[in-house]
Amino acid sequence: MIRIALGQLEVIPGRPDLNSAAMLQMIQEARDQRADMIVFPEMAIPGYLLGDSWEQAAFLRDCEYYGQQIVAASDEITILFGNVAVDWTKQGDDGRVRKYNAFFAAQQGKLAGIDNFPYPFRIKTLHPNYREFDDSRHFFSSRKLAAELATTPDQLLQPINLTIGGKVLSVGCILCEDGWSDDYFTKPIDILSQNHSLDLLVNISSSPFTLGKNNKRNRVFSKQARDIAVPLIYVNNVGLQNNGKTVYTFDGCSSVYSPSGEIAAYCSPFTAQVQTVAVSLTTDFPHLTSPAITEDNTIDRLFEAINYGTKKFLQSIGMNRVVIGVSGGIDSAVAAALYTHVLGPENVLLVNMPSRYNSETTKGLAAKLAENLGCRYVVVPIQQSVELTLSQIASAPLLNPRTGEESTLTVTGFMAENIQARDRSSRVLAGLAAAFGGGFTCNANKCELTVGYSTLYGDQAGFLAALADLWKHQVYELAHYFNTTVYRQEVIPAQTITIVPSAELSFDQSVDEGKGDPLIYPYHDYLFRAFMEYWNRATPEDILLWYQAGVLEEKLGCAPHLVKQLFATPAAFIEDLERWWKLYTGLAVAKRIQAPPVLAVSRRAYGFDHREAQNSPYFTKRYQELKSELLRGDANV
Amino acid sequence: MIRIALGQLEVIPGRPDLNSAAMLQMIQEARDQRADMIVFPEMAIPGYLLGDSWEQAAFLRDCEYYGQQIVAASDEITILFGNVAVDWTKQGDDGRVRKYNAFFAAQQGKLAGIDNFPYPFRIKTLHPNYREFDDSRHFFSSRKLAAELATTPDQLLQPINLTIGGKVLSVGCILCEDGWSDDYFTKPIDILSQNHSLDLLVNISSSPFTLGKNNKRNRVFSKQARDIAVPLIYVNNVGLQNNGKTVYTFDGCSSVYSPSGEIAAYCSPFTAQVQTVAVSLTTDFPHLTSPAITEDNTIDRLFEAINYGTKKFLQSIGMNRVVIGVSGGIDSAVAAALYTHVLGPENVLLVNMPSRYNSETTKGLAAKLAENLGCRYVVVPIQQSVELTLSQIASAPLLNPRTGEESTLTVTGFMAENIQARDRSSRVLAGLAAAFGGGFTCNANKCELTVGYSTLYGDQAGFLAALADLWKHQVYELAHYFNTTVYRQEVIPAQTITIVPSAELSFDQSVDEGKGDPLIYPYHDYLFRAFMEYWNRATPEDILLWYQAGVLEEKLGCAPHLVKQLFATPAAFIEDLERWWKLYTGLAVAKRIQAPPVLAVSRRAYGFDHREAQNSPYFTKRYQELKSELLRGDANV
Repeated sequence: MIRIALGQLEVIPGRPDLNSAAMLQMIQEARDQRADMIVFPEMAIPGYLLGDSWEQAAFLRDCEYYGQQIVAASDEITILFGNVAVDWTKQGDDGRVRKYNAFFAAQQGKLAGIDNFPYPFRIKTLHPNYREFDDSRHFFSSRKLAAELATTPDQLLQPINLTIGGKVLSVGCILCEDGWSDDYFTKPIDILSQNHSLDLLVNISSSPFTLGKNNKRNRVFSKQARDIAVPLIYVNNVGLQNNGKTVYTFDGCSSVYSPSGEIAAYCSPFTAQVQTVAVSLTTDFPHLTSPAITEDNTIDRLFEAINYGTKKFLQSIGMNRVVIGVSGGIDSAVAAALYTHVLGPENVLLVNMPSRYNSETTKGLAAKLAENLGCRYVVVPIQQSVELTLSQIASAPLLNPRTGEESTLTVTGFMAENIQARDRSSRVLAGLAAAFGGGFTCNANKCELTVGYSTLYGDQAGFLAALADLWKHQVYELAHYFNTTVYRQEVIPAQTITIVPSAELSFDQSVDEGKGDPLIYPYHDYLFRAFMEYWNRATPEDILLWYQAGVLEEKLGCAPHLVKQLFATPAAFIEDLERWWKLYTGLAVAKRIQAPPVLAVSRRAYGFDHREAQNSPYFTKRYQELKSELLRGDANV
Repeated sequence: MIRIALGQLEVIPGRPDLNSAAMLQMIQEARDQRADMIVFPEMAIPGYLLGDSWEQAAFLRDCEYYGQQIVAASDEITILFGNVAVDWTKQGDDGRVRKYNAFFAAQQGKLAGIDNFPYPFRIKTLHPNYREFDDSRHFFSSRKLAAELATTPDQLLQPINLTIGGKVLSVGCILCEDGWSDDYFTKPIDILSQNHSLDLLVNISSSPFTLGKNNKRNRVFSKQARDIAVPLIYVNNVGLQNNGKTVYTFDGCSSVYSPSGEIAAYCSPFTAQVQTVAVSLTTDFPHLTSPAITEDNTIDRLFEAINYGTKKFLQSIGMNRVVIGVSGGIDSAVAAALYTHVLGPENVLLVNMPSRYNSETTKGLAAKLAENLGCRYVVVPIQQSVELTLSQIASAPLLNPRTGEESTLTVTGFMAENIQARDRSSRVLAGLAAAFGGGFTCNANKCELTVGYSTLYGDQAGFLAALADLWKHQVYELAHYFNTTVYRQEVIPAQTITIVPSAELSFDQSVDEGKGDPLIYPYHDYLFRAFMEYWNRATPEDILLWYQAGVLEEKLGCAPHLVKQLFATPAAFIEDLERWWKLYTGLAVAKRIQAPPVLAVSRRAYGFDHREAQNSPYFTKRYQELKSELLRGDANV
């Protein structure tokens, strides 16, 4: 029986000084809990998402220095931790100094593991290069090292031998992706377990939160523990890290899996903590009461992630107060409920900015929302300013110096809509936010962001898009959740949930007449999700194939028979499909390039997670053929 | 002697239909030029920078289809080209279908090369994963394939045997980075030439323009041809590709290197063309008159790249008209000269937007610029609107619903400066641009962008930041160049070049009193370049070490003795250093996340080329120690 402390650290990216100090404190806690060993996450010292700061040699030297402090603290406890390892004598593929994403094990003030490996640490074998991950950009994998040394990854996958309680244990040491080898031909756990008699398998990770991922992890890791019949220790960090365009929460959920695949211990999500677990290395693993595990992929987890992410992001940029433009609609109401929960009502200023197009209905709902939440509230009308802008632009005398002639421009209704949106954000909200001592929020949802249904420098602006990885139906779910569970009273007015979603930028978008957005959320939410989140990305070609085969609703996961109700003919269906695809892959890309950071919760978020070029929309050859077939069918009817 | 056509294609990213059509036309041209073989660039059919469109199976099928059209056109000519190759039976490391960045050779309507390789094509060996490159994210390298097949890259690096003029030639086929192997332990050219008796080496590339890169390429590739003593054919594409945040030009400069390392032929930069060259495979390579090669790293090349990139970007998004805010200062004047050159004066609207802080001097210079260029010109004062905003914000009654009390906010001078900047861009320029039928430009330079010396949704806004990869001194150089070489007359007024650079957002920034920006460009341009562009990124620790050793100016490349003149004491020097480092790694990151696309010309551009996280500024332990030493020295004086 050894006592293992799960060191579920909150990692501050780019701060080896702070992280190592927090680790030293946790090491003391683990000692107090009589732990034999403490395990910290992958890249515990530097953090994981650091952009290209890995190219700064001075930063790397600091990571080494603080790593040595941790090693020095191992005189009475074994310490396992992740850090960048630098081989200053070798180079990486980019010609800079070579860096490894490394697993360190320290005992008695010294690093273990040099007896059977070229370095006194272990190296990550599998480098993820999808979604937000850029491991190959920065680090040299053991697959590459194997090729360089003219050996195989098998030979390099050596356990670390650690002496604990006078007994030498063979510990398999892997990092994050090494435990997710299904898609790789190199299988680190298989190799380790087949070639060695392991006593323990330790996976240190820096694994961002994704809705539904924990359930999958528990299935995968339970099976791994069972298959190789040793305890598996999984330690993940908590906190927030970002790559500029996309912001990730880390939920921790560090766990111990018994050799029979049961979850023997489980750290609370989104909480920094040291939890010491007695782990038996003999045949019978003690039947600890398996802790209750929160159901995954639920609105509770979604709220938890959004709430934690928003709180930590504000902390990380040192922002304590926010201004939110509230229209009376659902997105801004949910944003208001969220930030009020995070910062307290005294630190949230809600602003309603009516023009002549805003209804009494929505103006009343905005005021009611502020009253319910107890936030400061102000009405700043934009009509006067918008009229000044319209008149300045329409009357501006454009001089042609060649001819000496003057001309003027025409402002259309569509242009006037964008002028209103920019007036609200770039003029009023930005000004108010500075004076209030904070930032203003972007309340966009993922459906809007997909097709750029928002105005650049207008409602797309803000310091963070906290809801922009939620489809519109998830925003509604969250609204209900705030009322029923978070506040336990109706803070978001019921009518805000029931009225038609509308931008109210013209009389054509009158909520009182039931006129609103061109987006049909119960369909487009699901269509866009297929474009964006499906592992095999759906394109118009796939959509037409499904449509033709009568399986579209099933494939998209929206309500049955919806498509026939919405689109009477294939021509109408195709027109809608092409309209949004062109926007998604065209103008919306240009807008997203200048969008605020998106707080990620889904399996694919906008920003650096879904990388995109501003290229022209494309329809495949097969798509064109299918379209012709369908339209011919139309003509034949 | 064989006749080889360099197919210097303009690749339209994401358009296999258009690219294959252009290739078919070039194949006909090559036939007309009696070529035996035509060589096209890497990823000629799909394009190279496509974001995550590689994850769309329908798109991949189209690339395969159009690739087959090219193969079918090879009945009377040998065709070498780059395309994505898909193995639908295998998976990549991300679990999606496996894709290779591949080199195809077609003869008589069939693909060659299956006789000595698992596929009828060749695979890129070295995958770049630095700067803008993301090869490992999308493609499976031959290094990975070798590991999977339990063999070595050596065994997989097989030439393609092609029959030309009845003779079988052994052609070494490599892709782009394979020819830049200095930093890799696998050296494709060495392996190919040592294991095989090559007749020809062909490198197909998709290699973005960087100032100074061509000279280096000529040195490296000349040596390669000489070392292995066979002709080297290098074909690169022209055109424009982007990854959202950063936009790259491709200059082509396709070349033939003789076995003695001479440049035997050279395609014009930035020009789509087919050039057929007679290449001797016997001992004596004909001494063609080596074409004159433009000097690299000069203002001519810089202008050429910026001009081409701006023109192509406008074409790619279908924009024909632009609006430019002109202040009378240097950046907007250079932008005006650039866009006028690209689009013609009738399609450029220059707008001066004075507040009460703008001097008669700069207002006059803006008008003079418009007159010189012949652009349409308009003055739209912002004073009234700014005053309305200031008064609305300062008088807005913030209701506290808990207490019923009302309060107001205070607007500082700094806030008023940002209000002016946003008023100009988000209110006036955005409105005018829509009415004029175009976009408005961002005129920021790299020095400003480094430290965020600009206002978000204000002067940082625009559809493209065409000058944002130029340091301020390069903007001045370009201003001179426009007057002396492009227009051959003073279009940018001399005084615009000589006055102090200033934002004129307050009376403290009066140009008539010589007051201007807080940036000291002759120093900060070079300091920031060291942070940003040095291969081994400089940090404050490096700067202090150089300062202490008295080699700072030399290391930075700025004027000698400058630092002592600017900063009387180490304390003053350190204060300046910390101020800008904090901005560079702090607030400026937040601003850049929402910045427009940057047109890249340097070895490191902002955006997706220099990846960054919004983390907190960091000073290393060694930096803190050096600082203490220097400040103690100060105290001792």
